[in-house]
Amino acid sequence: MRVDSKIIVTKEKQDENLYQSLAERSKHEDFLRKAVDLLVERVVFGRSTRSSKVVEWAAPEEIKKAIDLKPRSGPASHDELLAFMTNVARYSVNTGHPHFVNQLFSSVDPYGLVGQWLTDALNPSVYTFEVAPVFTLMEEEVLREMRKIVGWPEGEGDGIFCPGGSIANGYAISCARHHFYPEVKYKGVHAVPKLVLFTSELAHYSTKKMAAFMGIGSDNCITVKTDNVGKINTVDLEMKIKEAIDNKCTPFMVTATSGTTVFGAFDPLVPISDLCKKYNLWLHVDAAWGGGALMSKKHRHLLNGIELADSVTWNPHKLLAAPQQCSTFLTRHKKVLSEGHSSNAQYLFQKDKFYDTSYDTGDKHIQCGRRADVLKFWFMWKAKGTEGFEKHIDKLFDNAKYFLDHIKQREGFQLVIAEPQCTNIMFWYVPKCLRGCENDADYYERLHKVAPKIKERMIKEGSMMVTYQPQGDLVNFFRIVFQNSALDHKDMVYFANEFERLGSDMIV
Amino acid sequence: MRVDSKIIVTKEKQDENLYQSLAERSKHEDFLRKAVDLLVERVVFGRSTRSSKVVEWAAPEEIKKAIDLKPRSGPASHDELLAFMTNVARYSVNTGHPHFVNQLFSSVDPYGLVGQWLTDALNPSVYTFEVAPVFTLMEEEVLREMRKIVGWPEGEGDGIFCPGGSIANGYAISCARHHFYPEVKYKGVHAVPKLVLFTSELAHYSTKKMAAFMGIGSDNCITVKTDNVGKINTVDLEMKIKEAIDNKCTPFMVTATSGTTVFGAFDPLVPISDLCKKYNLWLHVDAAWGGGALMSKKHRHLLNGIELADSVTWNPHKLLAAPQQCSTFLTRHKKVLSEGHSSNAQYLFQKDKFYDTSYDTGDKHIQCGRRADVLKFWFMWKAKGTEGFEKHIDKLFDNAKYFLDHIKQREGFQLVIAEPQCTNIMFWYVPKCLRGCENDADYYERLHKVAPKIKERMIKEGSMMVTYQPQGDLVNFFRIVFQNSALDHKDMVYFANEFERLGSDMIV
Repeated sequence: MRVDSKIIVTKEKQDENLYQSLAERSKHEDFLRKAVDLLVERVVFGRSTRSSKVVEWAAPEEIKKAIDLKPRSGPASHDELLAFMTNVARYSVNTGHPHFVNQLFSSVDPYGLVGQWLTDALNPSVYTFEVAPVFTLMEEEVLREMRKIVGWPEGEGDGIFCPGGSIANGYAISCARHHFYPEVKYKGVHAVPKLVLFTSELAHYSTKKMAAFMGIGSDNCITVKTDNVGKINTVDLEMKIKEAIDNKCTPFMVTATSGTTVFGAFDPLVPISDLCKKYNLWLHVDAAWGGGALMSKKHRHLLNGIELADSVTWNPHKLLAAPQQCSTFLTRHKKVLSEGHSSNAQYLFQKDKFYDTSYDTGDKHIQCGRRADVLKFWFMWKAKGTEGFEKHIDKLFDNAKYFLDHIKQREGFQLVIAEPQCTNIMFWYVPKCLRGCENDADYYERLHKVAPKIKERMIKEGSMMVTYQPQGDLVNFFRIVFQNSALDHKDMVYFANEFERLGSDMIV
Repeated sequence: MRVDSKIIVTKEKQDENLYQSLAERSKHEDFLRKAVDLLVERVVFGRSTRSSKVVEWAAPEEIKKAIDLKPRSGPASHDELLAFMTNVARYSVNTGHPHFVNQLFSSVDPYGLVGQWLTDALNPSVYTFEVAPVFTLMEEEVLREMRKIVGWPEGEGDGIFCPGGSIANGYAISCARHHFYPEVKYKGVHAVPKLVLFTSELAHYSTKKMAAFMGIGSDNCITVKTDNVGKINTVDLEMKIKEAIDNKCTPFMVTATSGTTVFGAFDPLVPISDLCKKYNLWLHVDAAWGGGALMSKKHRHLLNGIELADSVTWNPHKLLAAPQQCSTFLTRHKKVLSEGHSSNAQYLFQKDKFYDTSYDTGDKHIQCGRRADVLKFWFMWKAKGTEGFEKHIDKLFDNAKYFLDHIKQREGFQLVIAEPQCTNIMFWYVPKCLRGCENDADYYERLHKVAPKIKERMIKEGSMMVTYQPQGDLVNFFRIVFQNSALDHKDMVYFANEFERLGSDMIV
């Protein structure tokens, strides 16, 4: 062996010597600056004015013609790349537009966006303190504050950021299962009695889907009836629990919902918690949508009893308008996340590091490499303060109330739920040709066809985006969702006017 | 009912009238421009020079002192926010630095970054064509091209973007299970025989972890012995399969690895595939790390036989250097993803939409709302072309070979694996005090202590970041990972010099 001592390279010399690399870098810097100008001017600010379109509708084949989507063998020039950016933006739905009220997310918060851009520039993966020191501590602080807002005693509990509320609801199943049957982790579901869980018939589909994925089976996620405003019927819940026990099944959890996907209903958490205590069940609250209301003194009563839950899903990217994606799973049990999921991989979670390895929090997750979704939310929180979030929530509820009162007075609007609880308002728009025909045999069949037609018109014009769906026996109705506090009362009138313009003379 | 016809609001008038909102907007625009300047100058370009530090080490308590991480009630000023950005960047590990060679990801590709920033500005959630038209089509094209590169016949198969390779490996279990036992989706694991799967003892921990999460149990993920370079021992694999059958278990899949996490070993796919055919098992290949080598004519032989697999995990954020996070799950079965996971939620996947709803691809996923991870990778692919990725891969392997040859000749470096297969190189650095002591009783005990000490020194100086770990009977060794093609031979010498500087005089 010999030491190759002639090659001595200092860091500075390397940089100086790499002329080619510096030229490359200046080319990259030039491109990055042009790209950023395009982003700020044309994408972020150029698309969020009310006079721009919500969507530039094009069929799949048209988009494929307008943008060469296929990967290719050779490189594109910087000008070509800038043109790609322009076209990708042009044909993408303008989810930051004030009149995109189609989903449980919308708007592009400038602080959230900067937080996200900073995250991207730092390109972290959050699993060990060593690799993501700031993000690790930031997650801890934000999750602790969220648990405090839920109402659990300080110092208790744990939490994680998840890739979406569906997977957060899966973590709830996993934690509940581990809490009662820790042997499942090693031995599988075969080793324990047949487990069943309960959720409302109007709950998000993720609980059934995750039950299937997790080996429990979607049929063993038993759905419970709801009342006329969409809340879980606790009498039916208890009956279903008893039935399951009679059928030799083993109930282990209830997933209640605070803000259902379609109706925005808040399940009554206190009586559900009583049943959970009586039958020794884990209570999970899916507050993915409604959780934001916890930050308003005026509206947090909707989630009364949430502090009785064992775990909570809460997505700041919904009601609090953080950028996609920002979902959390919170639990008041301190150890269940780590004990239920850790595998102590030696290559990542070495215990002989020189710092306190209790900060290496990645093993609580089923993900290994993991994006940092905390910074954008933390940054928004710094920019607005808790007070800012409260004002935001109060304005959303005020707008929803204004819209509700407004359409109650207008011809052609028929409410699905007279007094919605959250900021989603559900209604049928009834064209002139159907008014007065409520008793006709084919009324509902015809009414069912209205929403898809109005939707097609609004999308092709790009004037707004509002979703519709059927629900149980109810034919297609619209669900408008308020989650962007840049909207005001005038926008509420605009929406109503648009429905009238697009639908009143429609023949079905 | 009366029509409130006095309020007529056009979109343009609204924008004009909202003076307050315009003032707010100009304030936001000013902040965004300042923030972007900071990002481009100080974060993206200011940190990637070799003369900057890889990490500015600070203990948890110091970081908490330097950055007020707690959420607060009132808003921060724009100047305070810019200061927060500076400090978050300062104390974050510089994963874009050429000398961050600690994980299976690194570098910040300028095109990938712009693609990510554009994604953030458009803030999409990918589930329906209606809401994410461009992203939906783009995913389809990119995943099709990736399947073609894997080597499956055109027109076959399906694929999805996943939040990380761990969850992709979970999808593999789910698809394999659904393929053989579709009743599990509804009835759960209880309804079928006790399932077992196989993977190498050196495979990534996610297969065991996901088996636990999915109700199969980590003990039922049976680990198979490896040979002296880390490849699965197919004789042991067949023995374990037979043993399981003898024990009344039902084998259903093998997860092979193309590029193991620590050693970078490539399992022999052709003989494994033969065993899978013989015993009717699903073959999944976890090519999260090694998949990128498929894009190089020179190196794709490492994955010979991958076209025989039923499914593949491939993370472009690893060897191809796309930003975090970009993971894919690919399968040559056309329907298993959708049939195995769909739940047909009426509120999202309405079938009476005015366009071809086969483009609403979200129901294949266990996520509902989902970030668009495709654009950054697609944009890099456009910018470089397949040729560019090939050059990138070839350069990584060339650097790894150079580093290997270099340390073979230098005193103090002892290889763990003489001929590593991928771009990770594993070695012990032996300080002078230990040289010649190989036969001492406490040699390995002392050697075990070297890596943590060198690691502490390098982190505190910020001169590079290289991870270490023990593995089985092997005491702590370093694993250096090459995945950034901005590095060259001089960097290889720099790394070796640094180990010598930090470690040669160390007393253990």
